[in-house]
Amino acid sequence: MSSDRLREQIRFILEIDKLKGVLRRTYLVDGTRRENSAEHSWHVAMMATVLAEHANEPVDAGRVVRMLLVHDIVEVDAGDTFVYDTAGGESKAERERIAADRIFGLLPPDQRSELRALWEEFEAARTPDARFAAALDRMMPVLHNIHTGGRAWRENGVTADMVIARNRRMAEGSRTLWEYVRNLVETAVERGHLAPPPERGRDA
Amino acid sequence: MSSDRLREQIRFILEIDKLKGVLRRTYLVDGTRRENSAEHSWHVAMMATVLAEHANEPVDAGRVVRMLLVHDIVEVDAGDTFVYDTAGGESKAERERIAADRIFGLLPPDQRSELRALWEEFEAARTPDARFAAALDRMMPVLHNIHTGGRAWRENGVTADMVIARNRRMAEGSRTLWEYVRNLVETAVERGHLAPPPERGRDA
Repeated sequence: MSSDRLREQIRFILEIDKLKGVLRRTYLVDGTRRENSAEHSWHVAMMATVLAEHANEPVDAGRVVRMLLVHDIVEVDAGDTFVYDTAGGESKAERERIAADRIFGLLPPDQRSELRALWEEFEAARTPDARFAAALDRMMPVLHNIHTGGRAWRENGVTADMVIARNRRMAEGSRTLWEYVRNLVETAVERGHLAPPPERGRDA
Repeated sequence: MSSDRLREQIRFILEIDKLKGVLRRTYLVDGTRRENSAEHSWHVAMMATVLAEHANEPVDAGRVVRMLLVHDIVEVDAGDTFVYDTAGGESKAERERIAADRIFGLLPPDQRSELRALWEEFEAARTPDARFAAALDRMMPVLHNIHTGGRAWRENGVTADMVIARNRRMAEGSRTLWEYVRNLVETAVERGHLAPPPERGRDA
């Protein structure tokens, strides 16, 4: 192993420290502040460790964990795009591709390809591992909202139909967890923590 | 799968969110604030993914990652014990054991045993996986100090001999990475970011 190789690896490790400064819209469960993408990545990786048995198809939990550890690294350059932000969503893919080129590009070639492929697999959400990882990544903000009285939802004008439309694809990774989330969303509407769809609001 | 089981799993996931509020002594690489144990856990897990080839003995990188994801969870109750805090260090084992009982105890019995065993293996640092995981956990604060001009070292009166004594055991997990860290420590002393041992200071 050449020391050049180690130096490249350490440079990557230091660079991704910046993910700790990328803020998401969701709040910590105790409501004290918004969470950042690094601590979210840890949390959702732990979720994969504990909930892997609920995947529709058998998954390699270790791969799901690694996928979730790297899934937000591109945000170091591209920032966090709020899931309900349609305008930002359009340019997201291109911004993140450029970010992936630069950040994974800091690594030695073999690891660059390996981590980049893992990130692309997550983004494409076509394999069982990636579909399950994506389901967990969608579920986490719902849990955070439920336990902060729907704070990020209310601050960003998100309604129940938006939550359902956005998270419906969870069922491709885990029908069990999607069922759980649907029940949470209903409860949140009943409690007034999440606004009903505009149509229902007018009819009620 | 009973829904009781899922409820227990989710309760654990929500409980460990508190790790995001446990502050360490080290600063982010950009120096803006101290880091918390959740984002540190993500960072050191990523480190394991990238540096596994430098372990003395072959390791199961997936197990090392999982070990590092859970290694600080007991701090939700026990708090972060600064590695150079001798008094706190004495009561640490007992405080963390009680914390492990409660927090891993939220999980269904099979997962409680599995994650607890993983944490205990990390703490004992006797297997190749655990020795390597422990080496990475020791290395990370050195990297953070080096890139913030030794800020946490200076704020806490840490001298070069303390850093060497504390981190020497890194060599049991990775001689390559220990060698790298020793060179960093020498450079830090030369640059005045880390105080030399008191004896050397008097003789100089």
